[in-house]
This record gives sequence, structure tokens and C-alpha cells, in this order.
Amino acid sequence: MRALFLDGSQLTLRRDYPAPAPASGESVVRVTTAGICGTDLELVRGYMGYRGVPGHEFVGVVTASSTPALVGTRVAGEINAACGNCDFCRADLGRHCPARTVLGILGRDGAFADYLTLPDRNLIPLPASIPDEAAVLIEPIAAACEIFEQVALAADEKILVLGDGRLGAIVASVLRTHGFAPVVGGHHREKLAALARLGLKVEAEEKLRPGFDCVVDCTGKSAGFARAVTLVRPCGRIILKSTAAANGALNLAPVVINEISVIGSRCGRFGPAVAMLDEGLVDPRPLISARYPLDDGLAAFAAARDPLKFKILLQVA
Amino acid sequence: MRALFLDGSQLTLRRDYPAPAPASGESVVRVTTAGICGTDLELVRGYMGYRGVPGHEFVGVVTASSTPALVGTRVAGEINAACGNCDFCRADLGRHCPARTVLGILGRDGAFADYLTLPDRNLIPLPASIPDEAAVLIEPIAAACEIFEQVALAADEKILVLGDGRLGAIVASVLRTHGFAPVVGGHHREKLAALARLGLKVEAEEKLRPGFDCVVDCTGKSAGFARAVTLVRPCGRIILKSTAAANGALNLAPVVINEISVIGSRCGRFGPAVAMLDEGLVDPRPLISARYPLDDGLAAFAAARDPLKFKILLQVA
Repeated sequence: MRALFLDGSQLTLRRDYPAPAPASGESVVRVTTAGICGTDLELVRGYMGYRGVPGHEFVGVVTASSTPALVGTRVAGEINAACGNCDFCRADLGRHCPARTVLGILGRDGAFADYLTLPDRNLIPLPASIPDEAAVLIEPIAAACEIFEQVALAADEKILVLGDGRLGAIVASVLRTHGFAPVVGGHHREKLAALARLGLKVEAEEKLRPGFDCVVDCTGKSAGFARAVTLVRPCGRIILKSTAAANGALNLAPVVINEISVIGSRCGRFGPAVAMLDEGLVDPRPLISARYPLDDGLAAFAAARDPLKFKILLQVA
Repeated sequence: MRALFLDGSQLTLRRDYPAPAPASGESVVRVTTAGICGTDLELVRGYMGYRGVPGHEFVGVVTASSTPALVGTRVAGEINAACGNCDFCRADLGRHCPARTVLGILGRDGAFADYLTLPDRNLIPLPASIPDEAAVLIEPIAAACEIFEQVALAADEKILVLGDGRLGAIVASVLRTHGFAPVVGGHHREKLAALARLGLKVEAEEKLRPGFDCVVDCTGKSAGFARAVTLVRPCGRIILKSTAAANGALNLAPVVINEISVIGSRCGRFGPAVAMLDEGLVDPRPLISARYPLDDGLAAFAAARDPLKFKILLQVA
């Protein structure tokens, strides 16, 4: 099959990559559409030392399964494939299972290929109301919803979403859907203007002033955390969404002095995200900047690195 | 008057230092006993760029005051001198007042001198039940109590106090007083043995294994945070008590991946600490390793740098 293969920092298109073999309890999914995420760009820069097929945002159709009823179903999929037996799995925290593989990130080939495998229990059948180009963004919408599982935000909380990229836009949209009025701060005038047209409050980075109750770091850069520390008020919260490859020289003294809470936040459950899309509460389609066929996957990655682009999709089938 | 004066990284004993003049609403305190804290050692290493008299753990007697009833009273004192008028002060968070000075740390000469000044409202009269050598440790006991103001610990929470120094010992003792059974992890066999004799559970650093629900970093070193990240379980909490001068190269990716919460924690209110000492619930006196007269202040600092010592006191009067 075709696959984008990452070996070290070298990404290549393979046409003879072996199709993945499903283990017991797993399904094979024919990928239809996949999204390139900031984490994928980090993987190519060496994050996680990943070797394999990247890609974890996808929509596809089940072609073979341990659960026959799934065959032919259009699905999205939770990306953490957990053991199902450990303390974390029993507490419904499979995404922290120490034995887990993670689609396209850790020990399991991902979605930038004709086929992928995932445990049957990871697959979420999609209602017809959600088109592929919206469903492919369920994963980042779920990651945004995760914030509500972790912290109780006050109704009048003054929230800054730092970063005008893909994730920042989705996090701000989901926060707005929940009745909050976040400000999106970023460096890119054109992107801020586009987000303003979507109804989001925006502010140029250099005009941001300290005093936010909560700063959500969606910059994808290690400098984002240091900037968040300067913008959050004492006793405020930073929700950290960026996993940047660079290990910046960080000074944690202000976190102690100002008694800031820093909450690491990663994947979320897919259920709430699917419900939001099904009910039309959030529509990520305006964030799609371009689509490329899988055969042009390297060009798609180059486009995804353009800081003026939001979301780049790979059309696989 | 006599004072230990810090200029850059140069600490000297001055015998002709001008006695501090109290502003309106302030008292003059004749210092009796003062404690050398990890923060003082950091200040000498350049932390905060402080120039002045260090020292913020003290007991003394009021010699002049805007509140005449205070004169002659034995007191401890909250170290943050706040404006009293800003949003933080109105919310009883004067220790985060942006206009504050901090005794011996920021814009206000401290306790390693014959006299200091503080606002009258910062002074806490001490019951006769609390001897000087216990009262001088009210500040770190209050800093330990601050944890309970910030996080709700579960009854069976598996807690690690990282660091077998002064602050770690006090934090572990206060946690134990509140019904928890923390493990103190550290590098120094002799100190761990001493803490075990006080009834604390201890473990050699190299024998610590990951999986703690909560890790309190009291190492005073920037490496402590990275170590805490490896020892806390996914979705666990790190309470950060160390303000280390060195800006280590920190990798925050595990905080995001494992959805760890990092809670910066600094000073606490003195009231609960005084009550604990008054009721005999905690007795920090076994942690006092040595006393030096103020005239031998430089030797006292040298002793405080000895990793095998717990607490060094300065006898001022």
C-alpha cells in the first residue's frame, strides 16, 4: 500500500509499504481523509524519536474487523490503543495506559497510508450528519473538550488562547460553544483576521497585556509556556497543550512565586466531540486551508509548515 | 546597627548599617532569632538580583510602632508587605500584591540585622507557649500549610516529598499532622535517618519508583522538577516549592503527555501555622542543627550550605 514513512527526520512516500495486520480484537480501516497536526510536524523534527507512518487524525471505512458489524462502517478512532487491563484502563483512563500504543505517534503505524489498524473499541461510527472534512478534526475537538474534564472554569473567566494556529482556533471555538469568550492571541495578522471572521475575539500578540485568569498554550512552541507565564495573573492557570520538541531553558521560579497552576492537557474522549459536531455546535470546516492527495504528501507537509495556513488535509481515498 | 548585607553575590557583615526607618503604619522590630532558608542561599547565588539585608524567618520584639499596643510584644511577621488597596489585597491575597515588598527578598531589608520594619498588620503576637526556636520556623510551616489552601488531597493520596532538607522535613511533618503518610525521598543517608527518628517515612532517592499521586518538590534545585516529573503518576500532581536560581533545560512534553498538574506554591498565612505550634501539633526544634551569633553570620551561611545540615539559626539578641 501507499504510506508516508518517517525514518528519523526523513519523510518519504512509499508505494510498497506492507499493509498492517490486525491483531485479535482489532479492525482494519481504509483511510479516506487524514489531517496533518502540529504533533506530526514535531515528529518530523525528531519528537518522540518516532519511526513509522505518522498520522492520527483520520476518517475511514472499516474493511475487516474482529467485530463483523463494523465492516463497512464509516468511523473515526481514538488514538490510544490501551491494554484494557491495568489500573488506568480500569479507571477509563486508557489514554494513560503505560502499555499503550498511540496511532502514528508511538509503536503503531498511523493514518497517512491507505490502511491502518486500531482496536475495535477505539472506533467511533460516524453519523451521516458529519461530513468527512469535519470528522477528520474530531481528535483536536476532543482534545479541546478535555479542558472541561480537567478544570472548572468560572463563568466570567478571562481566558487567553495563545496561538493562532489550528489547535488554538479549535480550542477557542469549543470554549465559545461552552459560553466562554476567549481572546485568541497570535503573531499572524491574516490568520487573526480569518478567526475574527469566524466570530472569535482576537488580539495581536504584541498588544496582549498580563492579567488573564487562564491561558491556554496552543502555540506548539516551547517559547509559548514562558510567554503564558508572563500573561497569566498570580494564582491563575496555564493549560498546556503544546508538546514542543525543543527543550527550552525554562524558568519555573515565577510559577512558584505567583502560585500559578500548570495543567498538562492532551487527548480527550471522542464522544463529546462527535456530539458537538452532530448537533452543529462547532464547524471546523472554515479552518481547512488546503487538501492534497496522499501522493503529494510531502508537498502537504511543506504546506502545513507554512505559519499562515490553518489545517492541511490529505485525501487518501 | 549590625547587618548582613548582600551586594551582588557578596555577603558582608556591616557594623554601621543604618537602622531602618518605619513608614506610616509600620513597626520597628528588634530581631531576637532568625533562620537561614534555602531562598537566602539562592539570593546569595544571584536569585532575584537582590541587594540589601536578607532574612525573612524571624522572631523579635516590637520597639516602636504606629500601633502603640504592639510595643514590647514578641512577634513573628508575614513577609509580604502589600499595598492594601489593589484587587489582590482586597481578595486577602496581599502576598500577590503587584506593588508589594518582601522582607529580605524584594525591596525591603530583612531579618539578618538588629532591627527590621514591617507593616503593623503583618505582625503576629506570639503566645508564650511557642519558644523562639520554634517560632522562627513559622514561615516555612505556613508555606507547608499553603498546600492545603491550594489542593484537596485525597485521604489515601500517595505523597512523595522530594528533598530531605529543611523545607522537605517541615512539609512532611505538616502533612503527617494532617493525617497523611508522605514518604520523604532524599540523597543524604544521615538526614534521612534523622527524619526517620522523628517518625517520618523515608526512602533513599535511588530507591524511589514512579507512581506517586502527588510529589512535593522541596529540593531547592532546578533538577528537582525534572525528577518529580519522572516519579508522579499520569494525571498526578506536582507541588512546586523550589525557586531555584538556575534555569535548567526543562522538557515539559511529559507534563502534557501524562496530563500532570504543576502547582506553584509559595508563602502561606501565618495563622494556621501559629495555631499548630501553639497546640503542639508540630515541633520543628529537632530540625535545628546549629545556632550562630549574628557576628558569625558568614560562618552561619557556610554551615547552611552544608547539605548534611537541616536548619541554621542566627542568634541576633
